[in-house]
Amino acid sequence: MTIEQTLTKAAAALASGETTAKTLTQIAIERMDDPAGEGARTFIRRNDARALRLAEASDAIRAAGHPRSPIEGMPISVKDLFDLKGETTLAGSVALKSAAPAIADAPIVSRLIAAGAVITGTTNMSEFAFSGLGLNPHYDTPRNPFDRQNGRIPGGSSSGAAISVTDGMAMAAIGTDTGGSIRIPPALCGLTGFKPTAPRVSRDGAVPLSTTLDSIGPIARSVTCCGILDAILSGGNPHDLPDALPIRGLRLAIPQAVVLSDMDADVAAAFEATVSRLSAAGAVITDLALDEFAEVAGIYARGTIVAAEAYHWHQSLIESAGDSYDQRVRMRILTGKEQSATGYMRLIAARADWIRRVNGKIAGFDALIIPTVPLVAPEIAPLVADDAQFFAANGLMLRNPSLINFLDGCALSIPCHAPGTAPVGLMVAGSAFADRHILSAGLAIEQVLVQA
Amino acid sequence: MTIEQTLTKAAAALASGETTAKTLTQIAIERMDDPAGEGARTFIRRNDARALRLAEASDAIRAAGHPRSPIEGMPISVKDLFDLKGETTLAGSVALKSAAPAIADAPIVSRLIAAGAVITGTTNMSEFAFSGLGLNPHYDTPRNPFDRQNGRIPGGSSSGAAISVTDGMAMAAIGTDTGGSIRIPPALCGLTGFKPTAPRVSRDGAVPLSTTLDSIGPIARSVTCCGILDAILSGGNPHDLPDALPIRGLRLAIPQAVVLSDMDADVAAAFEATVSRLSAAGAVITDLALDEFAEVAGIYARGTIVAAEAYHWHQSLIESAGDSYDQRVRMRILTGKEQSATGYMRLIAARADWIRRVNGKIAGFDALIIPTVPLVAPEIAPLVADDAQFFAANGLMLRNPSLINFLDGCALSIPCHAPGTAPVGLMVAGSAFADRHILSAGLAIEQVLVQA
Repeated sequence: MTIEQTLTKAAAALASGETTAKTLTQIAIERMDDPAGEGARTFIRRNDARALRLAEASDAIRAAGHPRSPIEGMPISVKDLFDLKGETTLAGSVALKSAAPAIADAPIVSRLIAAGAVITGTTNMSEFAFSGLGLNPHYDTPRNPFDRQNGRIPGGSSSGAAISVTDGMAMAAIGTDTGGSIRIPPALCGLTGFKPTAPRVSRDGAVPLSTTLDSIGPIARSVTCCGILDAILSGGNPHDLPDALPIRGLRLAIPQAVVLSDMDADVAAAFEATVSRLSAAGAVITDLALDEFAEVAGIYARGTIVAAEAYHWHQSLIESAGDSYDQRVRMRILTGKEQSATGYMRLIAARADWIRRVNGKIAGFDALIIPTVPLVAPEIAPLVADDAQFFAANGLMLRNPSLINFLDGCALSIPCHAPGTAPVGLMVAGSAFADRHILSAGLAIEQVLVQA
Repeated sequence: MTIEQTLTKAAAALASGETTAKTLTQIAIERMDDPAGEGARTFIRRNDARALRLAEASDAIRAAGHPRSPIEGMPISVKDLFDLKGETTLAGSVALKSAAPAIADAPIVSRLIAAGAVITGTTNMSEFAFSGLGLNPHYDTPRNPFDRQNGRIPGGSSSGAAISVTDGMAMAAIGTDTGGSIRIPPALCGLTGFKPTAPRVSRDGAVPLSTTLDSIGPIARSVTCCGILDAILSGGNPHDLPDALPIRGLRLAIPQAVVLSDMDADVAAAFEATVSRLSAAGAVITDLALDEFAEVAGIYARGTIVAAEAYHWHQSLIESAGDSYDQRVRMRILTGKEQSATGYMRLIAARADWIRRVNGKIAGFDALIIPTVPLVAPEIAPLVADDAQFFAANGLMLRNPSLINFLDGCALSIPCHAPGTAPVGLMVAGSAFADRHILSAGLAIEQVLVQA
């Protein structure tokens, strides 16, 4: 029995008695313990005893004939910034090591446990979720499954989330996404991620990066897996999932501004092949200028929403423990200190106007399709060594996905590379609260890409 | 026929044919034109031709048998900060004189006109609504009907709104309230005002003071008048008005912190008599410490929500035309320039926490009762002459009502003075979205006070 499979297949195996929650959990723990594996770099907090008890409880509930949801008994990891009752929430930092333990589970943790998930532990991340590469100087950086011998980045900030899934230490992972952190790691690691419209999933009990932009969602092995977990996280019905839209006539737009620049050869080839394949399957694909995408850099020229909101939360912690921060994170948070109230309000107002204009232009399409990131995963070592390379790569990784956060939208990242080659992600994106429609479009697109 | 009456009585007179919309409008225009009256100081923009056409249309619609609402054909004034299509919105300033005309009516103006109101014109106000006294150096200050020979303040910022009603130039007036501007003028002038929960009434098409706190509501002659107009402004059903709660057993709380300090003898006597009367009628009145009221000055010690949000809107106008501002307004707006984004977010977060705590303490009561303002109307001349007196009086006038804005609540001000004495207002206040309950409690209280 393996845990590298979709939630749907695992549910069938559990229902038939082919495996048990306890078996799956033991496999996950063995993987986490493997000294040759990525476990130590992937998990920050573990509680194996809790995981095994949750698994035993799940098997008992299943035996009683009342499985609680489609994820009954499945090992799931959560990002290190979520509160677990009785544990100190670290958010990938050491600055919080002496903070008080959480007095309650985050609501999304409660929902996962109530749905039958076995929480295996909390996963490594860019410190305080403030980077798209996934480097962490305190807990080391989990390595991408592709070309592991050379040590490539997993993508961030939900770095451990992705590796917990690729390496069979969880069947799915819950992450957060402020500028791409649920989409970049799946794109670089060959998984599927879904960033919902931000306010659909409660952000309580999670260390915030940006109260405006933070979104909580799944990283898993298929669009259906993401749909099931999104329903559980948002309090919906995980048995009532969207159907695939017909691929024939599916109206897809490729924005021309900003997002197609700087692609490396692998991404350009995979994206081109994907567009051809979707078109051949009957999708109606339109090039859309969408020059508004080019405005965002100007809107952010004198400070970002993320930095202003992050500084609000971090101010006192930086004063007391700023030396123990990843200094690349600290310096970016500190740019928020200079933001004026009126400048911040100007950003919020400029964003609202921009959203209105973009929504007007994309309303006639089922989804936008965009390379999630323009590069395949770079090697870790040069990015650790050199600030200039770090900031250049970080900016490129965040560039495309963060446009959808700025849009207040929702987006999948679906693998679109040829088997055996470096992973590449296709972002399928829409406006605020189009979540169900984007999942439906994503199912249609996934069918074409998997057949290829 | 007089127009100094309630909307309910006017509706009956119009329905019976005793008067017409045109007659009422002509009376209002005569009053506005009276050189011995307050018309010139009360209205900033007038359009008599429009008013007469709206009145004729109203009489025709009534003749056709389809009155549109309970305010069909009634002269209503609106504060000078509302957009009227084709007119330049001035907000009591001269700085906007060269601004472009409004391209559409504010939504609340559209709703009033659709309901059959005859818009008589726009009323004088504290410049940009940023003061509670009602002084305006550009358009002069309309005088309180009480002790008119000595020239007392009308209260602000909706100064002309109140005087348009007291002096028969409108049957009711629409104002805005960011820290008391719909309650202070009624309290000082013997009228009834209702500040709704802020987001219940669209703020579009109104020059903002504080996007968080601005509230739009009526000033009129009774709680029922306010209920009718609130239903029209908020898109509700003006035929479905709240009933009075039974006065017997009505649970009223008198907060002890802050709001009972510094009362002058008139207000103290009127408030004491009112409490006795309500108690004798069967209301259950409780002294409630509510020490949270004393925290607000500390929360605002390093800047206010109003100043930060006002500066955001005014920044470019102050740069281009700041010399033409009332300098007392300009200097207070400029304090918002120093506010940092994190300081602003801290204010918003501190307010949310304060609201939660106050709501917990007041949830068991039907309403709070509070002197709307601690002073009867002072004379205009010394306040114009002396900054120290101006700021002291302004602070006292805003002190009590602004606590309800900070609470995100709703409140009536109902007259509670003995006939022939200086007007005093009783504020009847509750939490966010308790609007209908506060109107019901206000009806019960009004019945007791009118009988007295």
